Amino acid sequence: MKYSFWSLLTLLFISFEGLVVQAQDVGGIEDFKPSSVNQPGKQYPQVNSEGRVRVQVSAADAKMVQLDIGGVKYNLEKDREGIWTGESAPQDEGFHYYQLNIDGASVPDPGTKYYYGAGRWGSAIEIPAVDREFYALKDVPHGLVSQVQYYSKITEAWRRCFVYTPPGYEKDTQNRYPVLYLQHGSFEDETGWSSQGKAHLIVDNLIAGNKVKDMIIVMDNGYAFRSQDNETTGKRSQMIFEEVLVNEVVPMIDGRFRTIADRKARAIAGLSMGANQTVRIIMNHLDKFAYYGGFSGTANYPNSNEIDPAKFLDGKFNDADALNKQLKVFWLGLGTTEPAPFPGSVGAFCKMLDRQKIKYIYYESEGTAHEWLTWRRCLYKYAQHLFQED
Amino acid sequence: MKYSFWSLLTLLFISFEGLVVQAQDVGGIEDFKPSSVNQPGKQYPQVNSEGRVRVQVSAADAKMVQLDIGGVKYNLEKDREGIWTGESAPQDEGFHYYQLNIDGASVPDPGTKYYYGAGRWGSAIEIPAVDREFYALKDVPHGLVSQVQYYSKITEAWRRCFVYTPPGYEKDTQNRYPVLYLQHGSFEDETGWSSQGKAHLIVDNLIAGNKVKDMIIVMDNGYAFRSQDNETTGKRSQMIFEEVLVNEVVPMIDGRFRTIADRKARAIAGLSMGANQTVRIIMNHLDKFAYYGGFSGTANYPNSNEIDPAKFLDGKFNDADALNKQLKVFWLGLGTTEPAPFPGSVGAFCKMLDRQKIKYIYYESEGTAHEWLTWRRCLYKYAQHLFQED
Repeated sequence: MKYSFWSLLTLLFISFEGLVVQAQDVGGIEDFKPSSVNQPGKQYPQVNSEGRVRVQVSAADAKMVQLDIGGVKYNLEKDREGIWTGESAPQDEGFHYYQLNIDGASVPDPGTKYYYGAGRWGSAIEIPAVDREFYALKDVPHGLVSQVQYYSKITEAWRRCFVYTPPGYEKDTQNRYPVLYLQHGSFEDETGWSSQGKAHLIVDNLIAGNKVKDMIIVMDNGYAFRSQDNETTGKRSQMIFEEVLVNEVVPMIDGRFRTIADRKARAIAGLSMGANQTVRIIMNHLDKFAYYGGFSGTANYPNSNEIDPAKFLDGKFNDADALNKQLKVFWLGLGTTEPAPFPGSVGAFCKMLDRQKIKYIYYESEGTAHEWLTWRRCLYKYAQHLFQED
Repeated sequence: MKYSFWSLLTLLFISFEGLVVQAQDVGGIEDFKPSSVNQPGKQYPQVNSEGRVRVQVSAADAKMVQLDIGGVKYNLEKDREGIWTGESAPQDEGFHYYQLNIDGASVPDPGTKYYYGAGRWGSAIEIPAVDREFYALKDVPHGLVSQVQYYSKITEAWRRCFVYTPPGYEKDTQNRYPVLYLQHGSFEDETGWSSQGKAHLIVDNLIAGNKVKDMIIVMDNGYAFRSQDNETTGKRSQMIFEEVLVNEVVPMIDGRFRTIADRKARAIAGLSMGANQTVRIIMNHLDKFAYYGGFSGTANYPNSNEIDPAKFLDGKFNDADALNKQLKVFWLGLGTTEPAPFPGSVGAFCKMLDRQKIKYIYYESEGTAHEWLTWRRCLYKYAQHLFQED
């Protein structure tokens, strides 16, 4: 060995010191830029080329301030002016919710715009993705995203959906359009797909590239409760949403917008909880929908056991021949780094489809977890299969 | 005297103890209810029948937590579980921005929805107003509020406006509609009027009551900067917004929506900074607009001095006869409790109109300051004067 005990010890010490410095203040490559989802004029949070997130907040009298992102809490450091700054480890490309903890209070970062996810309006960061062009705001014709407020007799409440109409919809008043019903995930709401999901920009770009048919997209709220129900479990909410969507939303949309009111011109898709909901909806209403998309979710969630098609969803997947005729497209997508139970439950579902010889398309989003970049990519891929048959 | 020294002392002690309790925890009448603009499921903040605001936040390790509302900071009290609670003095009816201060950090309250005002996305509270029915979500036909993204060559940037189309717009494809251009105030943006302003609900209700003509409302962002300008002063921004609105937004709206593209079917109005902007725009473009509304603002802001019409706005108010023919409606509104300089500058402007014998309608919102309840009421009153002549 060439190294003495002391030189090894010195090397160890330098390494250790280096690690501490890196964790405390440097945080990797010094090319941080303000996040694209910051509030106007706000310089923080920032993102560097490694995907590290640097936050900064003024809290002169605080004892401890933390950045809470990706399930990890990072301690910030205070300067003499009472400004706290700190960085996270590199994050995956895409969109992540996060929050600040100030002396035990979990609060939004005053620097970011706010999004509804994880059951609350809160902060988020966008780590620029290698393929971000497909959801970028570009110089192409843009459709409208319209807020529709409607009274639901089933829930005895006002509800809201957002409706994307493609470029030209307002002028081509003789045209009628197919419709995609597109649902968010658990602890999200009807704002998700047109905000963090960028559904409108994805489809604007696809239409401009002549890669999809012009379509209307309806984004509703997947939570629905009867007003007299005290027991508002997820299961019950799911069943009531099916009723609201099929009996109230679809007729309302067909009445108000220039749709093609036919199963062959109706698709339904959702992410996570929304995938679970929408696969049940299409299987219960094959007379109303012909295209299905399940992003990071299936109806056997969270179970990874082998599925018995004779029993699963009342045997709805039993008759493969009939399904292969009725389902124009059955499409499933998943991120390659999604945590349990998603790979297991989606995998078990695919195996069932394989054994049954039910045709489906399977897509994997490289390097993304149970997050919005997975679902943006899923929509991008899935939309290209829609309404291609007449 | 019937009272002994001791009985008086006891009486004093009881009174004093009562006052302290009231200031510290009771905060008046115990009929607090969750605010109507809370996030789903959030119990705090709350409002009582006196208009007091009670906030609550968990911050176990904090030394001091304050509610910062209406220019006053109220100290909260911590319980044994680390939950901080406290109340404000009674607030005016209507909509108020506020924030929490946690050990020196100014942050949004995690309990509320967020609004863009005061130059940031932040918390707000709604104190139920005596006349709240006029902006309530009711069982009447509802128009759409649509997000329009457009590229502005003048600013070399993507911009956004929201467009309200009245009930029936999608179906009555032969109808054409007059347009109101409606602007927010300083440190607000294009989201203001359809969010905290409730413009769509106000006009839905007026249309249902047959009190206004069907109309389109365009709500744009009053801030506009040339990309090459480093010197982005308010004055310059105002001038560039005029250019963007007249040369880009109006033609874009007339091209995309079924408008009546004529000055007699175009109104323009704004609040505060938006009033200042829009009065300049209409006076410079009487060929394009025939109806003006100024809510809590005028072009002489912040000046209260007598206005010389020969010089003011290049003499645009000099020829009363011509103006009285050209302006179908010139409408001004102000809250009775607005702070300086608004009563002074609006008052000086009205005096000039009086001396010039320029016809105008003047409205005062009882008991409201420079806030959104004033402007909701202004829109409610103003809209009823629009497009009544053919």
